[in-house]
Amino acid sequence: MTTTTIMRGVAIKGGRRLAIQDYAIPVPGSGQVLLKMQASGLCGSDLRAIYRPEKPKSEGAEGYRGVIAGHEPCGQIVAIGPDVSPEWNVDDRVVVYHIHGCGTCRECRSGRYISCHSELGRQAYGWQRDGGHSDYILASASDLVRLLEPLSYIDGSVIACGLGTAYAATLRAQISGLDTVLITGMGPVGLGAALLAQKEGAVVYGLEVDPSRRQAAEELGINTLDGASPKVKENIKELTGGYGPSVVIDCSGHPSARLTGLEVARDWARIVFVGEGGSVTFDVSPLVIHKSLSIFGSWVCSISQMESLVENLVKWKLFPEKLVTHVFSVGEAEQAYTLFDSGKTGKVIIASEEEEKRWSERKSISTA
Amino acid sequence: MTTTTIMRGVAIKGGRRLAIQDYAIPVPGSGQVLLKMQASGLCGSDLRAIYRPEKPKSEGAEGYRGVIAGHEPCGQIVAIGPDVSPEWNVDDRVVVYHIHGCGTCRECRSGRYISCHSELGRQAYGWQRDGGHSDYILASASDLVRLLEPLSYIDGSVIACGLGTAYAATLRAQISGLDTVLITGMGPVGLGAALLAQKEGAVVYGLEVDPSRRQAAEELGINTLDGASPKVKENIKELTGGYGPSVVIDCSGHPSARLTGLEVARDWARIVFVGEGGSVTFDVSPLVIHKSLSIFGSWVCSISQMESLVENLVKWKLFPEKLVTHVFSVGEAEQAYTLFDSGKTGKVIIASEEEEKRWSERKSISTA
Amino acid sequence: MTTTTIMRGVAIKGGRRLAIQDYAIPVPGSGQVLLKMQASGLCGSDLRAIYRPEKPKSEGAEGYRGVIAGHEPCGQIVAIGPDVSPEWNVDDRVVVYHIHGCGTCRECRSGRYISCHSELGRQAYGWQRDGGHSDYILASASDLVRLLEPLSYIDGSVIACGLGTAYAATLRAQISGLDTVLITGMGPVGLGAALLAQKEGAVVYGLEVDPSRRQAAEELGINTLDGASPKVKENIKELTGGYGPSVVIDCSGHPSARLTGLEVARDWARIVFVGEGGSVTFDVSPLVIHKSLSIFGSWVCSISQMESLVENLVKWKLFPEKLVTHVFSVGEAEQAYTLFDSGKTGKVIIASEEEEKRWSERKSISTA
Amino acid sequence: MTTTTIMRGVAIKGGRRLAIQDYAIPVPGSGQVLLKMQASGLCGSDLRAIYRPEKPKSEGAEGYRGVIAGHEPCGQIVAIGPDVSPEWNVDDRVVVYHIHGCGTCRECRSGRYISCHSELGRQAYGWQRDGGHSDYILASASDLVRLLEPLSYIDGSVIACGLGTAYAATLRAQISGLDTVLITGMGPVGLGAALLAQKEGAVVYGLEVDPSRRQAAEELGINTLDGASPKVKENIKELTGGYGPSVVIDCSGHPSARLTGLEVARDWARIVFVGEGGSVTFDVSPLVIHKSLSIFGSWVCSISQMESLVENLVKWKLFPEKLVTHVFSVGEAEQAYTLFDSGKTGKVIIASEEEEKRWSERKSISTA
Repeated sequence: MTTTTIMRGVAIKGGRRLAIQDYAIPVPGSGQVLLKMQASGLCGSDLRAIYRPEKPKSEGAEGYRGVIAGHEPCGQIVAIGPDVSPEWNVDDRVVVYHIHGCGTCRECRSGRYISCHSELGRQAYGWQRDGGHSDYILASASDLVRLLEPLSYIDGSVIACGLGTAYAATLRAQISGLDTVLITGMGPVGLGAALLAQKEGAVVYGLEVDPSRRQAAEELGINTLDGASPKVKENIKELTGGYGPSVVIDCSGHPSARLTGLEVARDWARIVFVGEGGSVTFDVSPLVIHKSLSIFGSWVCSISQMESLVENLVKWKLFPEKLVTHVFSVGEAEQAYTLFDSGKTGKVIIASEEEEKRWSERKSISTA
Repeated sequence: MTTTTIMRGVAIKGGRRLAIQDYAIPVPGSGQVLLKMQASGLCGSDLRAIYRPEKPKSEGAEGYRGVIAGHEPCGQIVAIGPDVSPEWNVDDRVVVYHIHGCGTCRECRSGRYISCHSELGRQAYGWQRDGGHSDYILASASDLVRLLEPLSYIDGSVIACGLGTAYAATLRAQISGLDTVLITGMGPVGLGAALLAQKEGAVVYGLEVDPSRRQAAEELGINTLDGASPKVKENIKELTGGYGPSVVIDCSGHPSARLTGLEVARDWARIVFVGEGGSVTFDVSPLVIHKSLSIFGSWVCSISQMESLVENLVKWKLFPEKLVTHVFSVGEAEQAYTLFDSGKTGKVIIASEEEEKRWSERKSISTA
Repeated sequence: MTTTTIMRGVAIKGGRRLAIQDYAIPVPGSGQVLLKMQASGLCGSDLRAIYRPEKPKSEGAEGYRGVIAGHEPCGQIVAIGPDVSPEWNVDDRVVVYHIHGCGTCRECRSGRYISCHSELGRQAYGWQRDGGHSDYILASASDLVRLLEPLSYIDGSVIACGLGTAYAATLRAQISGLDTVLITGMGPVGLGAALLAQKEGAVVYGLEVDPSRRQAAEELGINTLDGASPKVKENIKELTGGYGPSVVIDCSGHPSARLTGLEVARDWARIVFVGEGGSVTFDVSPLVIHKSLSIFGSWVCSISQMESLVENLVKWKLFPEKLVTHVFSVGEAEQAYTLFDSGKTGKVIIASEEEEKRWSERKSISTA
Repeated sequence: MTTTTIMRGVAIKGGRRLAIQDYAIPVPGSGQVLLKMQASGLCGSDLRAIYRPEKPKSEGAEGYRGVIAGHEPCGQIVAIGPDVSPEWNVDDRVVVYHIHGCGTCRECRSGRYISCHSELGRQAYGWQRDGGHSDYILASASDLVRLLEPLSYIDGSVIACGLGTAYAATLRAQISGLDTVLITGMGPVGLGAALLAQKEGAVVYGLEVDPSRRQAAEELGINTLDGASPKVKENIKELTGGYGPSVVIDCSGHPSARLTGLEVARDWARIVFVGEGGSVTFDVSPLVIHKSLSIFGSWVCSISQMESLVENLVKWKLFPEKLVTHVFSVGEAEQAYTLFDSGKTGKVIIASEEEEKRWSERKSISTA
């Protein structure tokens, strides 16, 4: 149990400024638990919507209400409020699904809190309610996903938002060993989707214009082509027996990458758009009608899918911590954000002292 | 709001005995609402497991804990406890999904409370927690489904268990206007499945050995064959252009009806088993392999499916109250159970005074 | 059997000119049958690619090789060549699937001759081999679909291309009574898709800018909105309980109608693009990712699907002849094309004397 | 090209007798090709229906008409008759799909010749028309599947019937890396299904009562449990994290193995019955309804699926020849059948001299 009543937390001020402040450690109310924070990831959407703008939005699904930031929290239960299911106990290791839903609308009742219809009930951690860049976090029991052994807290933090999103995209495409998959955009979601598609059985290729991202992908075992090469379409066709990939997952959010995906896809291929932003323009007859394509939009995973992801990662012995390049403490949040904002890193995590130590030791062994 | 503090409720004693007793009107706790009961259906499973046995089981999913009976409740919110989503308000008309789940396991988080894994968290209304044969009922907000206009409370009571089960079976078969559907067993679930399959677009035939049930089906507009006729298979083939039905839904629970379904089904047909109990035996090569059949087990609907059922009934102008033949007050519970136990009725409902009156008036108009 | 050796046929010359010429009645070779032509539809693609251009293309899938025109043939077998399956007999009534495939590639072996990979083997009737604007036609037995009673030859001609295409689009969307469907573009394919979607169980709305097409749709029982109205999106939302349609089928080929479809579609809706030509541009996040849409390209139906369409039309008592507004003889081909080119008609058919007579008499009765 | 006009062929006489006879080398007619035979597999159905019975059936789908036996032929085109698609050329290496269909019925037009409705048109090679136990075979071009490099003729022979059947079963279950698969019955089809399911991404377990078959499975890398062990169900649960397999494929044809599959399957699992013969009996509520199972019957693959199997085997570098334990020449047919009938072998093949030599050399290298 907690022995002090004060904890540190990180609020984002906009204009690339943070405030590391003291907060009262909260007491769990009805249906809530208190977690000791162990790992809390930084996500590109935090940079785009809260960290970089001089004045972040305060309204709507992307409105930031000045709360403790961090929407990829993973920790350990230290206190349990009333009316919590007996399934949860002190010391349980848990991932926090990054959005709390009203629990009443049809989307929530299918576990898709991201699509919750309720303006009052829907609250994202780190945006509209306190998030994970802190020593403790208050979480609703309805948002908890059990972290199975031997997954680490940092694994759990990667699962909480980005890898869950990648997983949902691969499920939408129903990937198997019958497939050859092209992933466009090798950022964190793209890398995650590529690793998952491999475990789902497919032969996987990446497409990326940035050389350092291509190198990171290759180091993770993902054969990645240069998206800027003038011969890239011919190369993809050649690698896929002349047919083109049977699945394309766009993680880039770029109109040109989306178009390339439609162009190289084989007849009857499935295309998934998961990378956010921007538009797409295409000729409908030759690219979609005459090739009988299916194009699916995929948002983040449901909480049930996140549970199945955890189970499968254990089965596959796939540890998403391998996407992480830097780990910092809550007190080093400034440094963490500045570095992540540079675009020169993989996944960056704010972690507890003990989790940071474990990670550093494992890292030093694996690179020795 | 309630003006007295005492209400009546019906407990089942086994051996075809009931006790109509006084109870304190409960006060809603965290996450709960109090409903004024309006309609509460009697279900065959109540007869089989609680009413008829001299000593009902007290343990397990079918264990009866002496609570107020009735697992098909429909009523109106009169009081709201703390921590309930602002989506719910006093005077809202609601169906109570008949099972409360832990809310934490993967099944609950997909809305399938029926399959809840938690021995402690899972509680059926009318079995392990107080049900609907009463003046008031305490319900968890997580179990409420909004009853849309112009559906009546009696419509809602029919939806709460039986029609939801029939709906799930038709969804499992993905029925459309392309299909010819055979329903085996014209009890309440079979009648409901037939009416729903028609609205989903299909040509529907029933199969039933009991003449009075065949007549009831015909009165509802369902062309129903005599299951005892020696020529029944030839007749079905003839009615379906020589091919047999593309979908069979077994609502009878009888081995021989299930076998008939497999025998008359066309190549690539979908078979759904939803009628509970008993076994089935069949030759695998001629009936399942060489016809490439798909056989699906279907239990009750999820809470999200119940919401979509309500929406679709309004769209289809299909009022499940038409399956009801008798309505009684709480005080007449003895009479209601005795009559229902005779097997000579359609759906039997215990209702509030005003709902009973509305139903009687409508009935007298429609049969005038 | 044939008693003369000479027949008339219509070749298209480009620049809105035809040539009605004498041809030797052909003799069926291996795997072929000779049909007495009964009905042969005019299709918009004939106008666009062969009739209107001063010099039609001669190469590729849309290359016209100067053959007898008409790719929607329906007739009766009068002679059978060697090596034809004993399933086919003289006097059989048949639809000719509009494209002959190589029979060897994977697409042909799934019955999708439209997607045949073989440059040599793939031949469309009326484009690369003699079509139906004639007294007789030579057809490969592999391209025949049996015309069931009571469908007429004109019904069969409508099935041969346009209605088959509409049917494939509705199958791609898996339409049922659970759906509310919006069809954008009320030309022949759109009208056909609307009538089929109704029979598959759905509530159907049309969207069309042209007032005369709206009127034609309304006369066929399809509630059709004005695509040019500034309030059209609000109107669609209102008609669909605030949710929007669960299925949209674009038969217009217009970028703006496609965009409207994506905008009004409800969460998890299925969108089918079947109308040919043009492009589409849309914002990916709000329209496709956050609504979890599925977009399917659909070309023409497979030959197996055409067989199931014929079976279902009989079951549904839906006679596609109701889309036809004018019927002409082979000798009146000039008049037929001039009128159809005006854009003021429904479906226009070139028919045999007896089929034209039957149609006129039925028409006069139904409008008496 | 052929230089003599006489070839040897093997007819089966029943009662475990063969006749090795001289035949005229046939000349391909319309739509036919002549193949030099390279490999022709022995199948359990040949033993059961023709070789062992004193008097084989002569009528129906399993009627043997005294023709040259062998329904798993693979060879090389040496002559081409008229009316054959230009896709086929002399020297092409081809698998013969084991059944010729009428080409006209709906099943044939979807590539499912096995389900051909025509009593006249449907002919299985080696049963109703000459098969592959010979120096040459006449094949219809519509039945040819291209054998891609580096697959061998013996690989092709294994594909022609047994592995195609196994492949269809895995497709019916939509297996991917998300799945844990249990295969019951480790005969040739079971072994093939296990190897394919692994390549489709799944973790695979076998179940087999025969110790020598278990050993053969283990040598192929398939973790196989003893079906006769009293603790087998507990063992399977344990290996699958307590959940049970998500897919079960019964290749045994035994009632008890089928029942075990239903018992150990997890909620929402897919069960495929592909092993022929016998029956199954099960309690419907606990095993199928309350677990929401799907049970699929699967016969042999379609010809399109066989083409995709060939493409995928090359991609996966999976060479089905590894299932073969003995290869004989046409002249050694007696020896081949006697040995295969003993039940002590894997797959047994009759091959050309050069293919036999290639196989022996490769075998001796791999076991050196």
